[in-house]
Amino acid sequence: MSELPAKVDIREVSLRDGLQIEQPIPLSAKLELLEAVVATGVREVEATAFVSPSKVPALADAAELAAELARFDQVEFSALVASPNGAKRAIAAELRSIEYVVSAADGHSRANVGRSSAEATAVIPDIVAIAHDSGATVEVIIATAWDCPFDGPTPPQRVLDIVDAATGFGVDRLAIADTIGTATPRRVSDLVAQVRPRIADLPLGAHFHNTRGAGLASAYAAVQAGITRLDASVGGLGGCPFAPGASGNIATEDLVYLLRDSGIDTDVDLQAAIAAAVVARAVVGHDLPSALLRAGDRITG
Amino acid sequence: MSELPAKVDIREVSLRDGLQIEQPIPLSAKLELLEAVVATGVREVEATAFVSPSKVPALADAAELAAELARFDQVEFSALVASPNGAKRAIAAELRSIEYVVSAADGHSRANVGRSSAEATAVIPDIVAIAHDSGATVEVIIATAWDCPFDGPTPPQRVLDIVDAATGFGVDRLAIADTIGTATPRRVSDLVAQVRPRIADLPLGAHFHNTRGAGLASAYAAVQAGITRLDASVGGLGGCPFAPGASGNIATEDLVYLLRDSGIDTDVDLQAAIAAAVVARAVVGHDLPSALLRAGDRITG
Repeated sequence: MSELPAKVDIREVSLRDGLQIEQPIPLSAKLELLEAVVATGVREVEATAFVSPSKVPALADAAELAAELARFDQVEFSALVASPNGAKRAIAAELRSIEYVVSAADGHSRANVGRSSAEATAVIPDIVAIAHDSGATVEVIIATAWDCPFDGPTPPQRVLDIVDAATGFGVDRLAIADTIGTATPRRVSDLVAQVRPRIADLPLGAHFHNTRGAGLASAYAAVQAGITRLDASVGGLGGCPFAPGASGNIATEDLVYLLRDSGIDTDVDLQAAIAAAVVARAVVGHDLPSALLRAGDRITG
Repeated sequence: MSELPAKVDIREVSLRDGLQIEQPIPLSAKLELLEAVVATGVREVEATAFVSPSKVPALADAAELAAELARFDQVEFSALVASPNGAKRAIAAELRSIEYVVSAADGHSRANVGRSSAEATAVIPDIVAIAHDSGATVEVIIATAWDCPFDGPTPPQRVLDIVDAATGFGVDRLAIADTIGTATPRRVSDLVAQVRPRIADLPLGAHFHNTRGAGLASAYAAVQAGITRLDASVGGLGGCPFAPGASGNIATEDLVYLLRDSGIDTDVDLQAAIAAAVVARAVVGHDLPSALLRAGDRITG
């Protein structure tokens, strides 16, 4: 197992992916969660999304939240966008790291942004131009990289086509996302093995949900396959675990526990991540699926 | 990833490990669960334990349950014992597959059976004699193989010493058990790599709990390391997921989902396993931690 990396960078997505399907919470509660998240030592935080406030009311305060970020100067903040207009709003709010989502499956792409996958891909150059003109970076996140809730399994070639297009358009980073939590380790290994040779040294991340229990197993498979950037949310925030089909991101604290005991460093302190999960549970007002939140660390002797 | 096996044998432990900390349920309810478990196609079922009825009241009906097993003739039933007397009771009840637990850590061993690990190991020959005299087999399950709730991390040498003793005493199978749900993939790979060279062709199984979210990741790591026998329980039965520190076994349906999508066959039908998890939830009367029980299969196209 000597191929494991010494370090994995975690991006904390509780503020965006974690909160987006929750009932809107006050900005003050978000800042409380943000303080706790930053206290974990994590270096990258997905802060919000500049998307339609009517479609995602929980993130309607994106600009207000962005105005609060400057004081956390040890953290790189990113924001998700779904259109050039969103990118302009993010840049205006002084975000310097833009995530642009392209669904590999047409069914999800149309449901999510009203465009086909090819149409969404064709917009990448506009996003890149807006970001680069302001000195910001662009990460293209390829959603439904394994399965689509409407179209079924995603042919890997659809992912590879977006990878090739995005690299050709000069994006700064890529990620592959298991949007509906169906990926399993072997399928992750297989897709990563197909993507990596095409992107040279471009940073490649992965994003998993624990909907079918395999989120951590998939994340570990991704790391074994050479991925060193993973998204996670404290508490496993991101959808009520008791609603059929809905589920949260992999929990930051569960991921950090697994990586630590695999000899892999993150910048995240485990006890601080559990403490942040306690804050997350309080601000959303319901239980969260994190395992460590219930069981705590093992006796490490 | 060509080293993955074509087949993994699952042993269904919901009737024993799953029920042992539950409030006792009627024999009729156990038989309803057993019918559902057998209907999944699984070939091995841990039916009960012949241990102290006062310590494990939920399994006090071991002999009565054993008397009902003969009609399920396509399944190999096993029973757990903690002493020669338990082995005699199991044999008298016509069980032909005996599991004897030895804790690698003294703290857990004393709490569990009132003996040190070495004392429990020394009893193996008595168990083997009782079983083999009746044509039954013995599996030694090494508990707390990674961590003990009292002693902290278990030095691997303690596990290897029991492995060596058990093979010397002529046991028929071995298993390593993550009793308190603390194992992670790298630690699993490391221990399996140390155990396998010492046991020639003796079957080796592994047993995981999902207490810290890494149960499936650990199970997959075990399979990658050459393990082809895994314990699991429908629904992830085995401890209330909402009690601090307690947690169930890895869920059969979650495991089958992960293995199926990794190209690994089991004898278990996924929909039947989910149906059995529904029965398990009904007979214990509370929610269970299984992911598939909530989310169902993916769209397999």
